[in-house]
Formats: sequence, C-alpha cells, structure tokens
Amino acid sequence: MKNLHAPYRSAVTGWLVRCLTVLLLLTNAALAGDSLPSWNNTAPKQAIIRFVELVSTPGSADFVAPTERIATFDVDGTLWSEQPGYAEQAFIYDRIKALAPQHPEWAQTQPFKAVLGGDEATVQAGGAVAITALTAASRAGDSMEEFAQIVTAWLSTAQNPKTGRLYTDMVFVPMQELLVFLRNNGFKTYIVSGSGQEFIRPWAEKLFGIPPEQIIGSVLNSTVEWRNGQPLVVLLPTSNLVIEGDGKVVGIDRFIGRRPIAAFGNSDSDMPMLHYAMAGGAGKRFGMLVHHTDAEREVAYDKDSPVGRLDKGLLQAASNDWTVVDMKSDWKVIFPTEKNSK
Amino acid sequence: MKNLHAPYRSAVTGWLVRCLTVLLLLTNAALAGDSLPSWNNTAPKQAIIRFVELVSTPGSADFVAPTERIATFDVDGTLWSEQPGYAEQAFIYDRIKALAPQHPEWAQTQPFKAVLGGDEATVQAGGAVAITALTAASRAGDSMEEFAQIVTAWLSTAQNPKTGRLYTDMVFVPMQELLVFLRNNGFKTYIVSGSGQEFIRPWAEKLFGIPPEQIIGSVLNSTVEWRNGQPLVVLLPTSNLVIEGDGKVVGIDRFIGRRPIAAFGNSDSDMPMLHYAMAGGAGKRFGMLVHHTDAEREVAYDKDSPVGRLDKGLLQAASNDWTVVDMKSDWKVIFPTEKNSK
Repeated sequence: MKNLHAPYRSAVTGWLVRCLTVLLLLTNAALAGDSLPSWNNTAPKQAIIRFVELVSTPGSADFVAPTERIATFDVDGTLWSEQPGYAEQAFIYDRIKALAPQHPEWAQTQPFKAVLGGDEATVQAGGAVAITALTAASRAGDSMEEFAQIVTAWLSTAQNPKTGRLYTDMVFVPMQELLVFLRNNGFKTYIVSGSGQEFIRPWAEKLFGIPPEQIIGSVLNSTVEWRNGQPLVVLLPTSNLVIEGDGKVVGIDRFIGRRPIAAFGNSDSDMPMLHYAMAGGAGKRFGMLVHHTDAEREVAYDKDSPVGRLDKGLLQAASNDWTVVDMKSDWKVIFPTEKNSK
Repeated sequence: MKNLHAPYRSAVTGWLVRCLTVLLLLTNAALAGDSLPSWNNTAPKQAIIRFVELVSTPGSADFVAPTERIATFDVDGTLWSEQPGYAEQAFIYDRIKALAPQHPEWAQTQPFKAVLGGDEATVQAGGAVAITALTAASRAGDSMEEFAQIVTAWLSTAQNPKTGRLYTDMVFVPMQELLVFLRNNGFKTYIVSGSGQEFIRPWAEKLFGIPPEQIIGSVLNSTVEWRNGQPLVVLLPTSNLVIEGDGKVVGIDRFIGRRPIAAFGNSDSDMPMLHYAMAGGAGKRFGMLVHHTDAEREVAYDKDSPVGRLDKGLLQAASNDWTVVDMKSDWKVIFPTEKNSK
C-alpha cells in the first residue's frame, strides 16, 4: 500500500530537487550583495561574514548542518536601546496605573502604592520580589492572546520619556540586518532576555523576525484556572527562572535543548551565554558584545553603568575570541529614523 | 545604500516566487496520494484530512496562516506504546544501576536502594519526590550533549521486558504518518509529554521528526556549575514543571507562546491540552484521543488503567467535538515490525 505511488513520487522528488537547487543558487546570488549595509567595513562585519561563510558553505571543514545553526540574542542593549530607560519597565508601570481603578487596595499596598505615587526609590528597594509582583499583576486575568493585544497596543504609541522617541524607533538597524543575514544563511534566531517572555513575544516577530516560540524570557510561575469550562493560564507572583547571567544558559538548555553556535549580547550578564556557545566542541563558534560607545547618537556606557554594565566582558573578550562592536565606529547608522532622514 | 541592489533583488524575487509556485503545485500533487496508508478509511482518517484541507487551503474560510498551524502531541500511549511498561522508567532504572558503583551510599539511601534491589513497591511509595530524585541522578554530571549520547546508546538496544521488542519498534506507524502529513501541510509539530525533556529530545527527531526545540517535557530545576571556565547545566532533584494535566497547558503557554490549533493525546491527562487547542477562538480546531482497544496487536485499556487512564475523555469526546481513534478498527497496522512482516 505504501509503495503504490512510489514511481510517481520519485519523479516528483526529482523535480523538487532540481527546483530546490535553482532556489539555492538564486539565494546565494542574492546574498552576494551587501547584506549588512548599515555596518562599516571594519573588523566586526568582516568577522561575521567570514564566520557565516565558513559554517554555511557545504564542503567547508567548518560546515554546520542547518538544524544546528542556532544563534541567540540578548535584547535590551543588544537589539534595541536599554538606555535611557527601557521598555518593559515603562509598560509595567503604565499597566499598573491603568488597572489601578479596579484595585483600590493598591493605594495602600506596596509595591503598587510606590508605582502609583511615582516613588521609584521604594520600588527599587523592593528588589526582585517587587518587580515580580508588578509583572504578574500587569497580566492578571488576561489570556495569552488578550495580553499580547494589550502589549501591542501599548508599544504602538509608547515613547521613551527621555528621548521622546517611540521605543520601536530605538531598534538597532545593524542588528536587524544581522538577524536577516543569519536567517538567510540557514540560522534559527532566538531571543534570550531577562525581560518577561509574555512582554517580548507580541513584538519580537514584527521588529526582529523572531516568532513567539523562539523567545526565551524570564518566566514567572503560573497555574491554570478553569473558566466556563476552558483553561486560562494565570501568572503567579513568584519567579520560575530569571534569564540573566547563568540563567541564560539554563534557559537555552531548557527551551532549545541544543547549544547555540553563535551568541550576541552587550553586558557582563551575557558572558555565560557567550561561553556556552563558544564551548560547543570542535568547529567555529561566534561570540559578540555590543559596546555602547556613541554618546552622540545613543548613550555611551560600560563598566560603571548600573544598567547593562560591561566590564569583565571587555577585559576578557580577546582571550575568549569574542568580537566587540564599537557602536560609534563600526555602525554606519544605529536607528531607523536616522537612516530615513538621510 | 540599502537600495543599491534593489533592481537585481527584484528580479531574483520574481524567480523565487515562480519557483516556489512550482514547488507548491508539485507538493500538493504529491500529497494527493494517500498520505495516511496505515489508517483505515474510517471516520478519524476522514476527519483529519478534512481538517487539514480546510485550514491549509488558501482562500478557504477556515484558512490558517502557516505560522499559526501548531499541533501538539502527547508521546506515551499516543506516539508509541506506554503499556506494558514504558521507556523512560526503564531507562532511569538502568542508568541508576549503571551509576551505582560510583555511589556506594545508594545501597543505604532511598529511593536508590529500592531501585537497586528491585523493590518497585518502595519506589512507587516514594511518589513524585522519588521519581524526581531518580531522574536528576540519572543525568548528574553530564552535559546536555553527553546525556543525549547516553540515552541514544541505551535506546538503540533496549527492549521492553514484557514484549521483548525494541522500544523503537513500539512506535505507532499511523501517528508517524500523521506527523509527516501535518508537516507537509505547513504544520509545526510539538511533543508535550510528562516524560523528562532531556530523555525525549535525543530520539524524538529520529523517530517522529520533531527536533529538540519542539519538545516540551517535564522540567526539573537546574543550575549552572562552572568547570574549567565553562558552564555546565546541572539538574537539581526538585520539580520545576510537570507536563501532565493542566501542566500541559502551562507548558504550551510557556514554551510555544501560541495556542495550538490541533492536539493529540490518549488519556484524561491530555484533556486540558485538547480543551486549550479547541478554545482558540473562531476557526476550525482539531482534538483527537487514541483509544487503546486492540488487545491482540497491542494492549486494551481505558477507564480502569492506572497508566494512561481514559475515562472522562471518552465520555466527553462527543460534546467537545473530539475525534476518538479506535486502534483496533481504525488502524490498519500499528507497529513497524507488523508492517514489514506483511
């Protein structure tokens, strides 16, 4: 029974192989153009292109099967700006304020009272416990789909209060190009970020081409409540996994189950992820740190910054064979608005 | 700068579109053959084909974009046999015995002592805590890659002690065909199983075409130990998430971040997953339960079985529009060996 259609299928397979070969040649030809036009032709761009060529060229000694071409990216400070101020915190505060009329008790309960009163010092003093409680409350009662709509609506108009720019205009164009370049060469791209997974998923596909199932973000514990005979996932105000530092390695192990061959970050907190990618055995690996050096176009910060601190990463980059991007000199443009205004 | 290659790219895009159109037509033609030859032409097969046609035919009122065509599958009892005896338990016991010489203390420590002495009653009396401790110990000290090699080597020779068959010969051929059929029609297939994710990942791609990153299995807490400057993920003997019952819904929400439009199981523990898939809003959805009715070719069991109990699922299938597969009458063949012997 199973072989009944074998001769027909064989002919079809022949056609498919020929068609795929044509596609492959055309794709390679298309890629021969400059896939990274927003990068200056300095060492980082050259290192990226060399690495991608080595692992994706059939017959190369460093060839890696497409299924193993996993690349992981931090988000805040790596794919878009984390200074001055970052999106998730602004969203959560806005959401708590929007929900406050339904929660009169928040006027007397921390950390909600502090958020509503603009008392940032008290929120920060609450540490991770406070942030976790606020994050869970910001999604309370919403299904995955409902919450995604809320985040999407927020991001469509939210502006960074200090720059006055839409958060969506603070994405790094060179990194968007890099993501496309990697995917065009058979890579599967993942986000591995300390922000909450529910917050990242609604916009990561539109801004960075990364679908919800390839988002590894910090996880809260959750449970199921049954409403009208249907299951609703409810976030609990307790942390399940924080995707920072070593937690990025745990998250990769848990969510992907394969070791990346390339990893991209911008702070010391990304170092474990870079180590994990680089130590995958024989074969070429790639690690990169984005160094925020451009005080004019973005914000310049590194070892003394409380947000996105980059200290050991710079000191140890050379001995670990990590590529360091100097935003000021290696990136021709940083933001989309900058580019559009040219 | 970015538009320099635009005319050339446009020509390439035209070629790509034409080539993809040809591919699509050829693929549809190939699929017009019988993609489910091990299924009898009864109601379940007809329901599957009708559903897949509706959601994957462009222009259909029920058309679903490929990115949203997510299908989730239980494993034990759904993709391969869970009775008599199932693979993960056998693996863990074998692994504990293999590691025992390095752990003289296990001779006096439960639940290890019970496993080494073949005292199943004591293991079972230890409940989830015992199973969790055994699971963590079975991987202790191995990297993800090392553990995958151990599982793969074990499965290449391990036989079910009661049937004398290789576990890999106890896969359900009709379900293997169904997985391929769905993927050929643009579905992304996931495993959502109570077994440990580290145990499932090494063989799911070979047996069922499902890669490691599409495996949602029960999760233990884990931490990172640094050895020679490199991070090693170490499992802890505490549960992080059990993918049974409501936990399947939590797992889907956490790992996929999209709601499946089709879900496949075989026990009451799969009902929340089926409810979650069916309640995804407007549009066609598909839920299926495999009912183990064939005492001759496999094992017949349902409402009185301690393993894979199926009771409420049968009673509520009709009102939920779930398809029930009667293995005895709906599957022409069950196992690969059966087929090869014809």
